[in-house]
Amino acid sequence: MLTLYYAPGTCALASHLVLEYAGADYRTVRINFANRQQQSPEYLRLNPKGRVPALVTDRGVLTETPALLLFIAQSFPKANLAPLDDAFDLARVNEFNSYLCSTVHVAHSHRMRGHRWADDEPAIESMKKKVPQNIGDCFEMIERNMLKGPWVRGDHFSICDAYLFTVAGWMTSDGVDRGCFPKVADHYARMSADPVVQRVLAAQAAA
Amino acid sequence: MLTLYYAPGTCALASHLVLEYAGADYRTVRINFANRQQQSPEYLRLNPKGRVPALVTDRGVLTETPALLLFIAQSFPKANLAPLDDAFDLARVNEFNSYLCSTVHVAHSHRMRGHRWADDEPAIESMKKKVPQNIGDCFEMIERNMLKGPWVRGDHFSICDAYLFTVAGWMTSDGVDRGCFPKVADHYARMSADPVVQRVLAAQAAA
Repeated sequence: MLTLYYAPGTCALASHLVLEYAGADYRTVRINFANRQQQSPEYLRLNPKGRVPALVTDRGVLTETPALLLFIAQSFPKANLAPLDDAFDLARVNEFNSYLCSTVHVAHSHRMRGHRWADDEPAIESMKKKVPQNIGDCFEMIERNMLKGPWVRGDHFSICDAYLFTVAGWMTSDGVDRGCFPKVADHYARMSADPVVQRVLAAQAAA
Repeated sequence: MLTLYYAPGTCALASHLVLEYAGADYRTVRINFANRQQQSPEYLRLNPKGRVPALVTDRGVLTETPALLLFIAQSFPKANLAPLDDAFDLARVNEFNSYLCSTVHVAHSHRMRGHRWADDEPAIESMKKKVPQNIGDCFEMIERNMLKGPWVRGDHFSICDAYLFTVAGWMTSDGVDRGCFPKVADHYARMSADPVVQRVLAAQAAA
């Protein structure tokens, strides 16, 4: 049994979606960011990073979205969520996920979490101002060079699609119009209509 | 034949080291950051992100360090550079590499590349000031929770060690004393003495 610690609106959605696509036997625990539960002693014992997602397995706790997504794909190979038998194709998947994690998510974090990288209010405000440009540049890169369509890898749905849907869900609040990126917008619309996605979003909303 | 595009002092060192540890047949091409060669039309055709590393393979160009490291480990399984047959152990490796990429490297980048996230000089200066604290916090996390010792995974040398050595090499210029983190310092000293590391550093210095 796997247990996913998550908070709504965070990148933990990607792992939640992939657990559901995998048909995994799992449960979820919602962490309340409003009262900073992610920094509570209990949670820090589980995940010293004080972030979500964290996935509790029978061998230990795993963190970092790209690692979780590949772990779930490898643990449930019949779900066919990643090209596990082809090192090059798998590298493409990891390349995509790593870009979302280390560039797109980081660009997004400068809107609400600027205090991670500067202490004074004017600097934090200055970072906020640049977010629409940076997120726009990221999705320009995704649209032109990374999203083959209809799915990220082309005809094969994969863990990348769950992660892209998660990150593309932040675009509007980051000040970027998804409509300017036709392939991204089409991907987002198809994912939004998927019963698996709707089930996971409903579960998070009800928790 | 693999071709690695790199620049000295960058995270491309991790991939260079792993190619050498793997015994791969490869060549390197040095990109001149001083004259912004990474933004030249020729290089952008190869890697639209305008960054290093980029690894040219016979199936296409790969980017993003965590993806490259796992790709090289999978392409040269006899070198035993990652626990390829155990999804959980491999997730630990990917978790480590993802943290270096999306948290430690990002914290480091706010020293010299603050212009990525803000346009005005005071904000960029403010980011710079926080780098020692952030890098210190990152290595506190690595020292306490992530580096088992003597190698990252314990007794088994892996791609994580090449990546950790690369990132730990930036600590002094980031204003953090490696000596405050005994396991990290010991790891760095052992890596520095390794003939493979010395060969790669010498090759980069001579290029």
